[in-house]
Amino acid sequence: MQPKTQKIFSRNALLVFSGGQDSTTCLHWALHNFKNVQAIFFNYGQRHAIEQTSAVKIAELNNIPLKIIALDFFSQIGSNALTDSTLEIESKAGELPNTFVPGRNLIFISCAASYAYSLGITDIITGVCQTDYSGYPDCRQDTISALAKVISLGLDKEVTIHTPLMQMTKAETVDLAIKLNALKSLAYSHSCYEGNYPPCGQCPACILRAKGFKEAGIPDPLLTRTTEV
Amino acid sequence: MQPKTQKIFSRNALLVFSGGQDSTTCLHWALHNFKNVQAIFFNYGQRHAIEQTSAVKIAELNNIPLKIIALDFFSQIGSNALTDSTLEIESKAGELPNTFVPGRNLIFISCAASYAYSLGITDIITGVCQTDYSGYPDCRQDTISALAKVISLGLDKEVTIHTPLMQMTKAETVDLAIKLNALKSLAYSHSCYEGNYPPCGQCPACILRAKGFKEAGIPDPLLTRTTEV
Repeated sequence: MQPKTQKIFSRNALLVFSGGQDSTTCLHWALHNFKNVQAIFFNYGQRHAIEQTSAVKIAELNNIPLKIIALDFFSQIGSNALTDSTLEIESKAGELPNTFVPGRNLIFISCAASYAYSLGITDIITGVCQTDYSGYPDCRQDTISALAKVISLGLDKEVTIHTPLMQMTKAETVDLAIKLNALKSLAYSHSCYEGNYPPCGQCPACILRAKGFKEAGIPDPLLTRTTEV
Repeated sequence: MQPKTQKIFSRNALLVFSGGQDSTTCLHWALHNFKNVQAIFFNYGQRHAIEQTSAVKIAELNNIPLKIIALDFFSQIGSNALTDSTLEIESKAGELPNTFVPGRNLIFISCAASYAYSLGITDIITGVCQTDYSGYPDCRQDTISALAKVISLGLDKEVTIHTPLMQMTKAETVDLAIKLNALKSLAYSHSCYEGNYPPCGQCPACILRAKGFKEAGIPDPLLTRTTEV
């Protein structure tokens, strides 16, 4: 439901939505701050259909339009551990982890901006976060700020990219989610690299998520939910 | 053939290749300046298969690897005259022409950069040109410079985007093509919005191309070639 309280912005916004913890929290941030919210999900050949299932379920729960885009570019160009299930997920000291999909956020946000343009929307929201950024350079504020500039130039229209979680720890993100009544949605959000429900609990994404909930002092609603998607 | 003369750069380069006049000229510029050249072509649901046929033919003529990417994002998000054949091509005063595909160059060049990253290439070449830029804001140097910055930040690697034609008129581009021995390739390059061979001669792309060859004082080899693709 789009809440009826006073919004900060009288405009509409488009959320780049992965069905994960961060973008789900951003969805609730957007619902509280913008007049109307739409979301865009990229099926980019990621290992697991569960991400799309999560995104669809959470969009339905909150009654927002969700545009699903099939973007198999990354599987056409080659190997990274998030789109190639034959690769083990690994991270070597001093190198970017092999879950790094080069240019992923640049391409997703540029595509989102193109879709937003067709909708007359100039506010884009992404859940990227540099505090816990896993070594991905396209999650940093300087990259996102530069991207907002190039999109505004390229579309000849002032576009803002909102990054509400950019400077937050995962615990602060959980606190924000509590404040925004996002826990029901978070019960369906997916983080695990292995794509299982219940999540594996062992991969970097599971460990980061668990740490956040532990520090915030509440159980992860994903682990205690009683209904299937 | 990759020419054997002294190159300016000892590095390899990736060309964003459309099979059109400008990027074909850029291909020859690249062959003269870089150690080795590869090209990437985007099949983005444009009206005409002839563009891909041209790109393949010209790549073969010059013995360069060509990566063809199917990117149907633009047809998934909606209407512009270059991907929707039900729309008439038109241009209203004070508005961007309806051939504007919002964010096209941003997305293509970001995807090219991602592919280049996987090849270990940091030099990207594009034939965009602001002199004759048809009103497209993503063909201007300020947009491309901002894009090089965001790609370098997002990939954590210094990437250069070369735009050899940026400040040239179409006549100067033809002069450059002559100097670079590009006329044989240009005989197979496609420009016409209508996707016909021989070209319609009436659309803005045909008119711009004809003007360039007329000012340069030579016939367009596309119009005088005797062999089919």
